[in-house]
Amino acid sequence: MKRDESLEEWLDRVDQDYLAHISLDCVVFGFHAGQLKILLLKMKHEDRRALPGGFVMNEETLEDAAIRTLKERTGLENVFLQQFRVFSDPRRSDPDNRAEDLKRIGIDPGKAQWFAQRFISVGFYALVEFSCVVPRPDLLSDTCDWYNLDERGPLILDHDGILEEALDTLQSQLNYQPVGYSLLPRKFTLPELQKLYEAILGKKLDRRNFQRKIFSYGILRSLDEKRTGVAHKAPYLYSFDLRKYQKALKLGLQGGW
Amino acid sequence: MKRDESLEEWLDRVDQDYLAHISLDCVVFGFHAGQLKILLLKMKHEDRRALPGGFVMNEETLEDAAIRTLKERTGLENVFLQQFRVFSDPRRSDPDNRAEDLKRIGIDPGKAQWFAQRFISVGFYALVEFSCVVPRPDLLSDTCDWYNLDERGPLILDHDGILEEALDTLQSQLNYQPVGYSLLPRKFTLPELQKLYEAILGKKLDRRNFQRKIFSYGILRSLDEKRTGVAHKAPYLYSFDLRKYQKALKLGLQGGW
Repeated sequence: MKRDESLEEWLDRVDQDYLAHISLDCVVFGFHAGQLKILLLKMKHEDRRALPGGFVMNEETLEDAAIRTLKERTGLENVFLQQFRVFSDPRRSDPDNRAEDLKRIGIDPGKAQWFAQRFISVGFYALVEFSCVVPRPDLLSDTCDWYNLDERGPLILDHDGILEEALDTLQSQLNYQPVGYSLLPRKFTLPELQKLYEAILGKKLDRRNFQRKIFSYGILRSLDEKRTGVAHKAPYLYSFDLRKYQKALKLGLQGGW
Repeated sequence: MKRDESLEEWLDRVDQDYLAHISLDCVVFGFHAGQLKILLLKMKHEDRRALPGGFVMNEETLEDAAIRTLKERTGLENVFLQQFRVFSDPRRSDPDNRAEDLKRIGIDPGKAQWFAQRFISVGFYALVEFSCVVPRPDLLSDTCDWYNLDERGPLILDHDGILEEALDTLQSQLNYQPVGYSLLPRKFTLPELQKLYEAILGKKLDRRNFQRKIFSYGILRSLDEKRTGVAHKAPYLYSFDLRKYQKALKLGLQGGW
């Protein structure tokens, strides 16, 4: 949907403005207070939550559609955003239920019909800086909010599977690519970086092994600054060496062939 | 299209049997005589070549559509096949040209119309053992053959870009994942494995560095056998340690966190 369009205006033209059969779903990861968070919508008259998603306009690329969707839900324009897989099970949504859901929230059955077709959905994941996001629901939702991964409750359609696969992708990328630049503030402490890794992996890591490994990648720049205003011994601050970070994104953490 | 269907039968039902707007293209890599090869179709009345591709039937997943397409083109059933990106530029094909191309090969304009719609194409790449493939053209093509990467000539639509992106994906995977199991015969020599890496990377590698690095991954099993019937000193044969290979596919070559 376009910004500031009413639900009625949107539904009136949805079959003309958007491509049939193709949708997209965004798994938006943020990191706050040592926890990995995801952004979910609470749809109207539906207890289960949903990933932010959308459709592709006639003259738009998938990437532009995902950027538009994320801007509408988060207020952010420059987001680390990546396609990770297409979800195409013909039974990923039940056509009858889908139209029913919309009728239940008062949408005319003729207009709800468009949503009953088969959709193949392209999964994107986004890494965003939690503190910069201003969540905003879409026209079919009551709320848009951050949830802890393990407190999210069941999601609609195949969204649980899409979320799991995005998390799998992120976890396996930790093994060969740097992660963190988009999720952390510019300056961070080593314990904060370790907590991010632990939150993504869902397990505790040994402090000394973590530090040995992360330093061996050569992507950290140690700053001549300490975190102030903390109770214990003030920890040193680090930032990413962006040139080396970008190189490792391209060649992997081992430096390539 | 289904096996043994005529062009007329296929075109007659294409708009009823297949989803609108969604296609797939397969970049099929093989390795032969020290060269990386790709499988291309020579379309009827068209000088440029094309990647093997297809459409998605109403009740089929994308993966099943790709498996079906590859089986039709290669005769192979169990192929290493992976989605790598969706191509969705609204100008990736010129609608007028697309219908014109089909009219030129004698297809009724009304039936050619279906092909003039906008298609978003899901790119798959496949790694196959060259010697097992029996290439077979599709209904819109004269021939289906292997080509050396650098002798392929220009491709139709955005297929050059799709091919380049598949090759980029394969090259970057060399930096963190094992590659080779699907492309090499079960037993191979170290020079053969090095040639495969060189063919994918498009550059020569130092023999000693290559061997040091590849042994450090611990994915090779040295066999108590030599290649026989060769002119020079008979080289030792190796195979992949499948358990370690699979683990490295999942965790990356470094062993993971």
